[in-house]
Amino acid sequence: MKPYKIGIDLGGTNIKAGVVDADNHILVKLSCPTGAQRPWKEVADDIVRLALQALEQAGVSREDCAGVGMGCPGTVNAETGEVIYSNNFANWEYVPLGSYLTESLGMPVKMSNDANCAALGECAAGAAQGSASAVLLTLGTGVGGGVVWDGKVFEGGPGGMELGHTQLIHGGELCTCGRKGCIEAYCSANALIRQAQRAAEADPASLMNQLCGGDLSNMNGKIPFDAAQAGDKTAQAVIDQYLVWLGEAITDMVNIFRPQVVLISGGVCAQGEVLTKPLTEYVQENAFAGRRIPTPPVRIASLGSDAGLIGAACLVS
Amino acid sequence: MKPYKIGIDLGGTNIKAGVVDADNHILVKLSCPTGAQRPWKEVADDIVRLALQALEQAGVSREDCAGVGMGCPGTVNAETGEVIYSNNFANWEYVPLGSYLTESLGMPVKMSNDANCAALGECAAGAAQGSASAVLLTLGTGVGGGVVWDGKVFEGGPGGMELGHTQLIHGGELCTCGRKGCIEAYCSANALIRQAQRAAEADPASLMNQLCGGDLSNMNGKIPFDAAQAGDKTAQAVIDQYLVWLGEAITDMVNIFRPQVVLISGGVCAQGEVLTKPLTEYVQENAFAGRRIPTPPVRIASLGSDAGLIGAACLVS
Repeated sequence: MKPYKIGIDLGGTNIKAGVVDADNHILVKLSCPTGAQRPWKEVADDIVRLALQALEQAGVSREDCAGVGMGCPGTVNAETGEVIYSNNFANWEYVPLGSYLTESLGMPVKMSNDANCAALGECAAGAAQGSASAVLLTLGTGVGGGVVWDGKVFEGGPGGMELGHTQLIHGGELCTCGRKGCIEAYCSANALIRQAQRAAEADPASLMNQLCGGDLSNMNGKIPFDAAQAGDKTAQAVIDQYLVWLGEAITDMVNIFRPQVVLISGGVCAQGEVLTKPLTEYVQENAFAGRRIPTPPVRIASLGSDAGLIGAACLVS
Repeated sequence: MKPYKIGIDLGGTNIKAGVVDADNHILVKLSCPTGAQRPWKEVADDIVRLALQALEQAGVSREDCAGVGMGCPGTVNAETGEVIYSNNFANWEYVPLGSYLTESLGMPVKMSNDANCAALGECAAGAAQGSASAVLLTLGTGVGGGVVWDGKVFEGGPGGMELGHTQLIHGGELCTCGRKGCIEAYCSANALIRQAQRAAEADPASLMNQLCGGDLSNMNGKIPFDAAQAGDKTAQAVIDQYLVWLGEAITDMVNIFRPQVVLISGGVCAQGEVLTKPLTEYVQENAFAGRRIPTPPVRIASLGSDAGLIGAACLVS
């Protein structure tokens, strides 16, 4: 068996390429700007260049490299290697990226959605290590979802696994997908920021205003937690409500998949146990059949931005 | 390969056992009352008796029978054959039904949730025949869910696949599971009946009152459709709202799984195209990425009560 793999994390801002060994350690990691507005072949050629450069710097021969795995934002057809649709790239629809890279690199290329790759990476070497199943929710600009089952990515059909685009409050806040009331519209980092802005605006005495320097456009996902810890009741109410919404979203995922672990990732997760403890309890209380059936713990993803790269490499079998 | 299988559909009211051939035809089907209040071993012994009787009546020898598959309501551990919890049976918690039946019958016994079996049966011989993936929602007293992926039941972990127990309107109607606002609380046949009763009560002129003989406890899932077809606007509003709620629920399932087909079953599905046409369109309009990615059709399950029995037999490989 060939001992090394190349992992690619294709993002809207940067392309990262790394060489990963059989123990899921990254030997070399390189990065370059994506230039997401360019024609897709230019982006693809940069991926090829970066991958080969990483291989060379790691001192790994092509013969010792089992293949290339790549995580990509948006909707990916894992079977055909097509990027069906991604709003991170200009005019990418049904782009045959996988087959182009396979030909250019002369190596097998496997692809999946970036959140799927992150979930797989966390199972291989992160906060879900040793678990055969995990659901990951990425709390960022939006809410992404990745599912690992029996140690592999559960892809669903093309366009599936959009876990953030399921209803939390039918008819509620407008979501980026065009529907109203999706989990993403309540549980993303952006949603938390919006919730904190509204609360701070309604309560001029809230410490959150001060922490924003009087300008609510400076609000970020950390400020409500900082203000709550300093005793600000308005901020605490924002956090409490956010935890209920996120708790409901995670309970949904537990009722659907009942994985061994639920992971959350994103900047807001720097809060650690302030999130995981109440969320784990919320799931225990609210999941189907209550305490009769064990519920999974909620944990913070631990690999940060390396999760996607390691997980992408794990796509190569 | 042994050409015949036994399928068991264990329900809260009746036990059904059948012998199924390699073409998924039922050769013989027998049934007896479940007696769900009895100790589980008495129920199990009746299953054994019924299975062997079906085999005998079909003229099939044990040597020609590959094994037994059984669908069971509630939470089933498909790996261990335990019924973890089922509110259809008195005091059934972690009942080792699978191993007991395996020993008593001297044949391999596979188990799954009854909605999973129904989905598998519909893929093998019903409305999803030829599809490698399908999501089935059963609209009855509650909302059950079954998922077939790559031609097999996707089990999730024990306690998972409770698709009806995911949020539609956080904080909304109380659900049988103890949470508020689940899909089941809006989309079950019982929920439709409740919605129709409320609307009829609020509008004494509505035809629905007359069709209930003046007693709203006579409301059923057919009356609002009948009244709407006769031009009753209040009934039409009930149907329109029900279709939106069910459309949202199905859109969630499409965004999660993106199966090849979505099936619905239950008494209310006698309405046929009155449901499937608007629901298919609703999903096309509202699923993630809209019309950029194909969405599955919504169809009515076609095997009726035989789906569970045929699907159970299909659990045996």
